[in-house]
This record gives sequence, C-alpha cells and structure tokens, in this order.
Amino acid sequence: MDVQAYLAERGSWVERQLDASVPAASEPPQALHAAMRHLLFPGGKRLRPVLALAAGEAVGAPSERVLAFAGAVELVHTYSLIHDDLPCMDDDAERRGRPSVHVAFGQATAVLAGDALLAAAFETLASDAAGLPADAVLAALRELAAAAGSRNLVGGQVDDLAFEPAGADAPYIESIHARKTGALITAAVVGGGRLGGADAGTLAGFRRFGEALGVAFQIRDDLLDAAEQGRCSLLRAVDPVRAEARADELLEHALRTLEALDERAEPLRELARYAVRRDR
Amino acid sequence: MDVQAYLAERGSWVERQLDASVPAASEPPQALHAAMRHLLFPGGKRLRPVLALAAGEAVGAPSERVLAFAGAVELVHTYSLIHDDLPCMDDDAERRGRPSVHVAFGQATAVLAGDALLAAAFETLASDAAGLPADAVLAALRELAAAAGSRNLVGGQVDDLAFEPAGADAPYIESIHARKTGALITAAVVGGGRLGGADAGTLAGFRRFGEALGVAFQIRDDLLDAAEQGRCSLLRAVDPVRAEARADELLEHALRTLEALDERAEPLRELARYAVRRDR
Repeated sequence: MDVQAYLAERGSWVERQLDASVPAASEPPQALHAAMRHLLFPGGKRLRPVLALAAGEAVGAPSERVLAFAGAVELVHTYSLIHDDLPCMDDDAERRGRPSVHVAFGQATAVLAGDALLAAAFETLASDAAGLPADAVLAALRELAAAAGSRNLVGGQVDDLAFEPAGADAPYIESIHARKTGALITAAVVGGGRLGGADAGTLAGFRRFGEALGVAFQIRDDLLDAAEQGRCSLLRAVDPVRAEARADELLEHALRTLEALDERAEPLRELARYAVRRDR
Repeated sequence: MDVQAYLAERGSWVERQLDASVPAASEPPQALHAAMRHLLFPGGKRLRPVLALAAGEAVGAPSERVLAFAGAVELVHTYSLIHDDLPCMDDDAERRGRPSVHVAFGQATAVLAGDALLAAAFETLASDAAGLPADAVLAALRELAAAAGSRNLVGGQVDDLAFEPAGADAPYIESIHARKTGALITAAVVGGGRLGGADAGTLAGFRRFGEALGVAFQIRDDLLDAAEQGRCSLLRAVDPVRAEARADELLEHALRTLEALDERAEPLRELARYAVRRDR
C-alpha cells in the first residue's frame, strides 16, 4: 500500500472534521479564532489522528465512528505545540516554516488559543460522537484526557524543559519521550480501537504498540532535528547510532504486538514503519 | 438556612474530591504537581462546585452523583485563574493574599500547571463518574467543555484584555461577564442538574438561572474590587449605582426561574442571594 496516499486521504477527512470543530476565523473574537486555526491549517502530517482511524479500521470499524475522536487528538496535539513554542518554554519563533502563534498573534492570545483548542477537543468529542455508545466515547475521552495530563504530556514537557544531559541515561530520556510524545500516540491508537469496538486483548496490544511506536517516533524526530537543523534535543545525551538501533528495535516490537490481526491492520503497520523510518 | 455553613460543609466535600483528582505534590514532576495544588488548596469560596451540588439537590439527587462533576468545575475555574494572572495577561503577582502561581513557580510551570488542571477536569469527570449513566456524564462534560471554550470563558478573557472603556455600553460589558464568568456558573448548575436527573424544563430554567446569576455575580465582584482595592474593572465604564441595581434585578430574575421547584431548591436560592449580596 501507498502510505503517503493513505495519510493524505485520511488527513483530508481529519481536516474537514477540524474545520467543523473550531469557529470560523470571521467569528468574534476574530484574533482568537484565527490564532486557533493558524497552526491547525495547513497543519502537519496528521499522523496521530490517522493512527486513530487506522486503529479503528484494523478492527473493522468505519472511519466515521472514529473521526470525532481523531479530530480531538489533533486538537490536543496542536494546543501542545502552541504552548511549547511560547517564549517561556522552547521559545521557537517558527513552526513548519511559518511564524509560531505567539509571534503572529502575541503571547496572551497564543496561551488562550491553546487553552481553547484543548477545551474544543473535549467539546467536539462529547458532541460529535452522538450515535456512538456513550460508554465507549467516555472511555476514549478518558484516554485522551489522561494522555494530556500531568502524568503524561504536560509532565514530559516539564521534565524536557528541566533536562540536563550530564548524567542522563537512556531510560530517563525514554521516559520523557514516552510521556511527552508516546502518551498521545498511545491514546490515539487505544481510543481509536475502543471506538472501533476492539476487544480487551486487542486493546492491550494497541497500548503496547502505541507505547513502543511513540518512543521510536520521537527518537526519529530528534535524529532528524539534529541532522537537519543542528538543534538541541534530548538525544544530545546519547550516541546517535545507538538511538537509530533503538528506534528499529522499538518498531519491531510495535509490529509484533499486531501479529494476531489480519490484513485490515496493514495501514496501522505501514503508518508505524513510515513514522519511524521517514526522512523528514 | 445558614448559607455559609452550607458552603463550608459542601466545600469540604469538594476539597476531598479535588485532592483525589490531582497527583500528590510529592509525585514527580514535583514542581508541576505543587504548582497545580498552589491555588487549589486552600482555594476560594468553592461557589461554582457547590452550586453544582445544590442544583443536583434541588432535583433530589444525592451529592455523590454530582461530586466528580463539581470537582471538575473547580479545576476549570482554577486553571483559568492561573492563566489570567500570567504576566502576558492581567499580570497579577498575588491571588487570595498569596503569590500567584507564576510568581511562586515560574511562568512555564504556571502555563503547564493550568494546562494540566484543564486536562484533569475532563479526566476526573470521565473516570470518577463510573456508575452514573454514561449519556448524562457526557452531557455534563459537554456543558463544561463548551463553557471553557472560545465562545465562552476564553473568548470572554480575550475581549476583557482588549476592553476599551471609551464607547463601551452596558450590554457589551454584560456579554463579557456572561462569557468570562457566567458560562462556567451556568455549566455548573446545568451539569449538576443533568447528573441529578433534572427534566428538560427544569434544565432550561437552570440555564436561565445560571446566566442571570453569573452576570450578577461578576457585577458584585467588580464592585467589591473597585471599592476595596481601587482596581480597574469593566465597571469603570458604567455608573456603580446602576450596576448595583442591575445586579439586584438579575438576582430577582434568577430566583424567578426556580419558582416551580420545592424547598429542596432552597440552598440554590440562598447561594444565589449570597453570591450577589456578599460583601467580600
């Protein structure tokens, strides 16, 4: 299969969902709604939401069952990028070749746009999931909220900001990757599976898949950053050759967790290979 | 009834719920968890979560049905205070007589602590509401998320930050009050009623009650701020005597929406009187 075409097609479905989840930039307060949309469109690879759709597909569910959740995952991801870029955090003036949100709209609006995207994630999931079993929606929502919380995404960012390479070991770096990046990827896959009707055994496999893939994805991201931009990353504390090997090992581990699934899981497998082996 | 005693007793229930919803300050990252707890304990009047409990009581529901939701409301309120105090927003160094979170823990940790509290609100509601009907939990969660979003709390803060007294009229000021303060108070009452099993007619009354009470509460807050600290507020654009009269009018309107309810709604009525007539 052509994973890039799969990502592009599903990505366009996610974009329609996102467009419906966030008020138009013409709706007051216009600066706020424009700021919420600034990083959301055109957006990035849409890997996380498409992983959620692929997890649903892997257990035979139509994409419509998972689309509201997939959009919510992307809203959480986008909020986290806006706040990470703030001057008091990573202080990045650019993101994906454009001014970051605080540069384009000011710090107050950037903080508030991130806040509103986080709230919109839960609003859209609780609203658009009408017609699905309420208990499955609540379970997926719980996964997403836990991934966004202090034990995961936010805690990982706190430890990333405070990171000191001296004395840091690989397991500690992986624990930051697992929380800052892995948790949301895991929630995407587990939540997509939950809404798709996956049984408990499959969900447990999806969780191990997401955990391994999430860390491998972030290792690849750090290696690309270091190679392309000479940017600092957690990996400055470890040998890049060993990091490459570790990413491959985690990818193999992730793929093994899907062994019991049939060819409907092929997109999920291909997305994993793409995420860890991509060159940008 | 003694409304202060009612607030104190229900407030202590809410505090136990909040304590269970946020990781201990000893759990890493310790600075993050301490920052999340800084404004949460001892906290303020707990008016919003106790309104949620009183709304449930008004339709005959035991408090346990509404407690997770009440805690979630207070988590959203607390997150919004932390972000409002940031240097790029209201730049308040103190809150309730103590250093605000960014003064005590730094800006990055303050932004992230707010983010984590917002996520925790939805996590705790989706998790602790087990045993309740999932559709009622989702409906209450949707109310809360919408109240926290760009059309309400966040949009109200954006317009408050950009407010220019020259040419502002009372309806515009009330629209800021309604979004920045009223929406969360309305969500507290409507969500509490929804979890308490209120019928559609009662819920519609609760919504009008919350909308009127929310604006009246904020008018009182602004009048107290202006009198005690000489602080700027939206009210600098209007006559304080007319503002007093408007708060009283809104309180009467709020109380009329509860006319069909029996004596079980008395705490809700007394909380409304207290919120609008309090002297601090």
